[in-house]
Amino acid sequence: MSTYEFPDLSPMLRPRSVAVIGAVPELHRAGGRPIPFSIAGGFQGALYAVNPRRTEIDGRPCYASLADLPETPDLAVITVRDSLASEALRDCARQKVPAVVMFTAGFREAGEAGAILEQELIEIAEAHGIVLCGPNCIGVVNRHTGLMASFASSLQIGELPPGPVGFVSQSGMFVSLAIVEQVERRLGVGTLVSVGNEAGIEIADVIAHYAKDPEIKVIASYMEGARDGRKLSHALAMARAAGKRVVILKVGRSKESARAAQSHTGSLAGDYRVYRSTFAANGVIEAEGLEEFFDLIEAAVHVPAVAPASDAPPRIAVFGNSGGLGVLVADKVRQSGLALAEFSEATQGALREHLPPFIHPVNPVDLALQHLEAPHVLPRYLDALLADPGVEGILAIFGMYRPKTLEFAHAILDARANSSKPFVFACPHTSAEFTNCLSDGGVPVFGTPERAIRALRSLFRRPATGGVAPQLSPAARERLHGLVASHAGRTTLSEGEGMQLIEALEIPVGRIALAEDSDAAVRIAAGAGGPAVLKVESRDLPHKTEAGAVALGLEGADRVREAHDRILAAARMHRPDAAIDGVAVHRMVPESRELLLGVRHDPAFGPVALVGAGGTAAEVLDDVALMPAPVTDKQAEDMIRSLRTFPLLNGARSSTPSDVRAAAAALSALSTLVEAFPQIAEIEVNPLFVAAEGDGVVAGDVLAILNPDVPASR
Amino acid sequence: MSTYEFPDLSPMLRPRSVAVIGAVPELHRAGGRPIPFSIAGGFQGALYAVNPRRTEIDGRPCYASLADLPETPDLAVITVRDSLASEALRDCARQKVPAVVMFTAGFREAGEAGAILEQELIEIAEAHGIVLCGPNCIGVVNRHTGLMASFASSLQIGELPPGPVGFVSQSGMFVSLAIVEQVERRLGVGTLVSVGNEAGIEIADVIAHYAKDPEIKVIASYMEGARDGRKLSHALAMARAAGKRVVILKVGRSKESARAAQSHTGSLAGDYRVYRSTFAANGVIEAEGLEEFFDLIEAAVHVPAVAPASDAPPRIAVFGNSGGLGVLVADKVRQSGLALAEFSEATQGALREHLPPFIHPVNPVDLALQHLEAPHVLPRYLDALLADPGVEGILAIFGMYRPKTLEFAHAILDARANSSKPFVFACPHTSAEFTNCLSDGGVPVFGTPERAIRALRSLFRRPATGGVAPQLSPAARERLHGLVASHAGRTTLSEGEGMQLIEALEIPVGRIALAEDSDAAVRIAAGAGGPAVLKVESRDLPHKTEAGAVALGLEGADRVREAHDRILAAARMHRPDAAIDGVAVHRMVPESRELLLGVRHDPAFGPVALVGAGGTAAEVLDDVALMPAPVTDKQAEDMIRSLRTFPLLNGARSSTPSDVRAAAAALSALSTLVEAFPQIAEIEVNPLFVAAEGDGVVAGDVLAILNPDVPASR
Repeated sequence: MSTYEFPDLSPMLRPRSVAVIGAVPELHRAGGRPIPFSIAGGFQGALYAVNPRRTEIDGRPCYASLADLPETPDLAVITVRDSLASEALRDCARQKVPAVVMFTAGFREAGEAGAILEQELIEIAEAHGIVLCGPNCIGVVNRHTGLMASFASSLQIGELPPGPVGFVSQSGMFVSLAIVEQVERRLGVGTLVSVGNEAGIEIADVIAHYAKDPEIKVIASYMEGARDGRKLSHALAMARAAGKRVVILKVGRSKESARAAQSHTGSLAGDYRVYRSTFAANGVIEAEGLEEFFDLIEAAVHVPAVAPASDAPPRIAVFGNSGGLGVLVADKVRQSGLALAEFSEATQGALREHLPPFIHPVNPVDLALQHLEAPHVLPRYLDALLADPGVEGILAIFGMYRPKTLEFAHAILDARANSSKPFVFACPHTSAEFTNCLSDGGVPVFGTPERAIRALRSLFRRPATGGVAPQLSPAARERLHGLVASHAGRTTLSEGEGMQLIEALEIPVGRIALAEDSDAAVRIAAGAGGPAVLKVESRDLPHKTEAGAVALGLEGADRVREAHDRILAAARMHRPDAAIDGVAVHRMVPESRELLLGVRHDPAFGPVALVGAGGTAAEVLDDVALMPAPVTDKQAEDMIRSLRTFPLLNGARSSTPSDVRAAAAALSALSTLVEAFPQIAEIEVNPLFVAAEGDGVVAGDVLAILNPDVPASR
Repeated sequence: MSTYEFPDLSPMLRPRSVAVIGAVPELHRAGGRPIPFSIAGGFQGALYAVNPRRTEIDGRPCYASLADLPETPDLAVITVRDSLASEALRDCARQKVPAVVMFTAGFREAGEAGAILEQELIEIAEAHGIVLCGPNCIGVVNRHTGLMASFASSLQIGELPPGPVGFVSQSGMFVSLAIVEQVERRLGVGTLVSVGNEAGIEIADVIAHYAKDPEIKVIASYMEGARDGRKLSHALAMARAAGKRVVILKVGRSKESARAAQSHTGSLAGDYRVYRSTFAANGVIEAEGLEEFFDLIEAAVHVPAVAPASDAPPRIAVFGNSGGLGVLVADKVRQSGLALAEFSEATQGALREHLPPFIHPVNPVDLALQHLEAPHVLPRYLDALLADPGVEGILAIFGMYRPKTLEFAHAILDARANSSKPFVFACPHTSAEFTNCLSDGGVPVFGTPERAIRALRSLFRRPATGGVAPQLSPAARERLHGLVASHAGRTTLSEGEGMQLIEALEIPVGRIALAEDSDAAVRIAAGAGGPAVLKVESRDLPHKTEAGAVALGLEGADRVREAHDRILAAARMHRPDAAIDGVAVHRMVPESRELLLGVRHDPAFGPVALVGAGGTAAEVLDDVALMPAPVTDKQAEDMIRSLRTFPLLNGARSSTPSDVRAAAAALSALSTLVEAFPQIAEIEVNPLFVAAEGDGVVAGDVLAILNPDVPASR
């Protein structure tokens, strides 16, 4: 994998001095905010107002231009209108200002003319090594230094206690919402960066910075898309390695919403499924909506992540004051990828011993109302729940519970102190006092069971599935190089040529040989050791079944001969001008399952490996896994196991399990091909026949598309 | 369909007089609440305290027993402990009290001893025609009369304005939560019934009552399960016919949660998928969680339902003050079964005319912040959005919007007044004043886009898919009767016997005839008009493929003869003692798709029709539709169309569409069978081969299980 250089964001996030270009005295205008907001925030560095039409603002001098300042500021905030913005940036370049935040809108998001203007900004920033944030952004905030280089109205809501969250967003609104949400949830305000159109720095740069920032514990991002998915992946890996939690709300998942993102910040979305697998591989916590986004941030701030005990859904214990809420929770636990724990004998014994006889010692535990009046009993069975090896986490759900004292909350925190198992509360309509006591003690409290369950789920994090990326062997590389070079300038390969690529990757192919006439076909089929398949070979017939150019399950010389002549005639009738190489003889793979393997090109991530259920089902069921190529055998196996139809492959019902390991090895091998040979734009093996465990796989058909513009050299 | 008698609940919900058995002076005890709560609620009828250990409570006389009251009360509330409850109920029976609400717990939900106690209650209530609500319930409330026969603490939260919602719940906690939620959401409190263990009245009875109650506009229910699913369906149809909206939170959907429900109120859950189709057929709005439940109730109170314009997802327009929220919404719209409308030329023109040039006239519309300061412009383009024939509903999303005046809200309500299209707001962090103004005007406001979208989705209601249930023809009935009678006392049928049932229903079968020897097999196969399938016929070999007792795709006398002998030998080797009737010859159906049709028995709904993707895929993918039998052709077709794999059947990609209509007719025919013949416990046609459109279907295999205990007579 390539390595990336991430810019140093200190001048932007920890400037000693800030100039506001286009400063005005009106607080309701964007240019009127950064200086008074930063003063209110306690920023200790120098703040300079720049505006040729004024000499002072609010009692401090206003300079006509950057050149007039007593020093070169670390950070310039450009708030002028679109037609003046590039000149202001040029001015910063002349004065060697290292970092610029640009509020100004009207660029790429506004259409073609704006895109041209934005290209100018990009070129100026690149030429002078300026760290440029924006344009079309709401600015940056660093509560730890008091820097408020932003016009977000929510900075005026009142006291903003400092907090451990590093926030980065393509949407300015989400920065505003984050400030309010984090304050209301008592998480404090840490650092916030609105990257807007990303003409300069992008989300990945900010994540990489947060990974190294000791004041940031949790990284959160609203993301429409990444220009370079692999760079994003690299930044996420850095964050993970630094022990930081990352929560992402990825929007623009569908075609329609990607179009909306295009007209919002002009971001190219790429295939969401590649983001999803990239996030999973890097331990990112993904949010599904606005409230859940902030819920998961809250949970990440309060509770350390744990590894689940196994590949199965983490098992949790549920207890509360309502049977009805317990039943609802039991449904939601399952839907969210958790499971209800089966209590051990010891736990059941403890519950029987310490709870009244009419309370069943089963999960969810429905405590009697009366019992809540005796919170001193709680630790006796809570210790048992926390000690049960079959219990990986705890959800307590108390509806309408407004205790007169906090004794119950303290009893929970005491028990919790001896365990690292995640513990989350759901309390519809409780008191703020109860909620705050628990949250401050590391047990987050949410207002509905659904929210609490999703938060609890987010606290289980699987270990990274990294590993050394597979590489082509020098011999395979040599052989492939010859094959690809010989097809220079072409855009498709015949099936036989495609099969040679596949064989060079040491993936077994079903095709035995090409028969020149019916006698040859009979002879080759006789050596197949079972029923044979005949296919007309021609690069002009991509859809052979529709053309009648395929015959299956042939046994005996007569049937092979008859089929040979029949499919050739059908192919010629279907397309008289097709160049036909002959009839290929394949072996049939008995009792096999079918997969689709491929490598495609993603606008954000480049080559991505793909696996899906065989045939047309993959597309119709959207049962496809995608991951940036190349993938390791382990990653390939995880991809196959993530398919909804995996149980069919794994011997659901009475059939025998298929050779998943061989299929994974084939996918991994295929995924190395395109990175090594960018001439291959896309390749698809469909079907890959997967035989019974231990019996391997066979590539049934292959379709490769070449990029004629890429030279054949390495 | 059978008809049901629903009890008259007026004595319980509109009593003239109420006695509380086990009344006490302590307000924190259940027995201490109904009288003071009802007085506070303004109840105008007589309230009697009954407790042999007291002579007065709070200044009013306390009677030693029911017999001592000056009159027979309409309603008795039993609050005594479990060991005294049945005697208290007997007392009510002796005094001819028409209705009883029983708070007491410790019955079916507590285990076997409790179940015996509960059976006693059931028998007393039935014998004396008492309307019994409970036991193990939190009581009933009718805000319209002031009746508060409940101990729900939330009745003490303050003023309870009257409202139009009829609430019924198996969980007492949900009654408490409903009171708080409805008051906080300014929906008021209507009638609430906690049915608890349903020893007497059940949810369906209360829904049927609400259907006729003029004060109830929206019916809401927390439901773990129905004892009689068909009765529930009947009550829901009554509510629909009366023009009432019904919102249901159905829990206990999975095996685990059904077990939790069992130990909560002892309810039997049945298969959730049958509830789901029953709800859909009756226009019920289904909630997925706690907050959504109350959100959908709120939306139903504020906004009338509309029919969607087509079978496609309803198309909505989105506008708001944030591009970022717009992209998030575009994702969620799609996920929730809505679609973004494409604006008409006229709408685009109006948006261009009235909005600044940098605002794109595309959906979602991202209004500039500045523009919100000019609310008088709003009606000009809002009228265009509402008039656009491609727009079926509107979602406005405004984050952090705290307007100084309500001019904007009033402009929206003015525009809204001329249109029946649903209009919903999402406003994270707005002012209560703004929210209340819009909500009161019929435009509900929710705090997150996800919640608003689900609420908007719930306002589109498809017309009922009723129709006259299909009936067996007298001839078919006669023929089937003979077949079933001849198998009396047996539990399974051979495939040939099963096929006769299927043929009697006029569903074409693939089986041509039974061959007694290989010569006969060759002769029959020759008449198949294409390749043949041979199967050993034996009721002792349910899994023929595993036994090697099937051969496919046979052409020519030699191959048929060889296969006949081979599969017979294999079957005998697999199970030497199997009774073998011979080898059945089937015709192969070329190029067909496979479905699974069946009728199963559901504990709540009785016989249910089932359709799924063929083979093992149906179970693995959980791609199955279930509906109470019998189903009409139209309902059967809707079931088939609801399958996730339906696109495969309908000619996805290049293949031709299958004969969906013939498959639907076969499912409808099969679904009539079991209702007419309760001897048939279950029947499954798997696979049903579905040929190309117009070419019909063929039953490949059939498995029928008989119930030997049911007499063969009609």
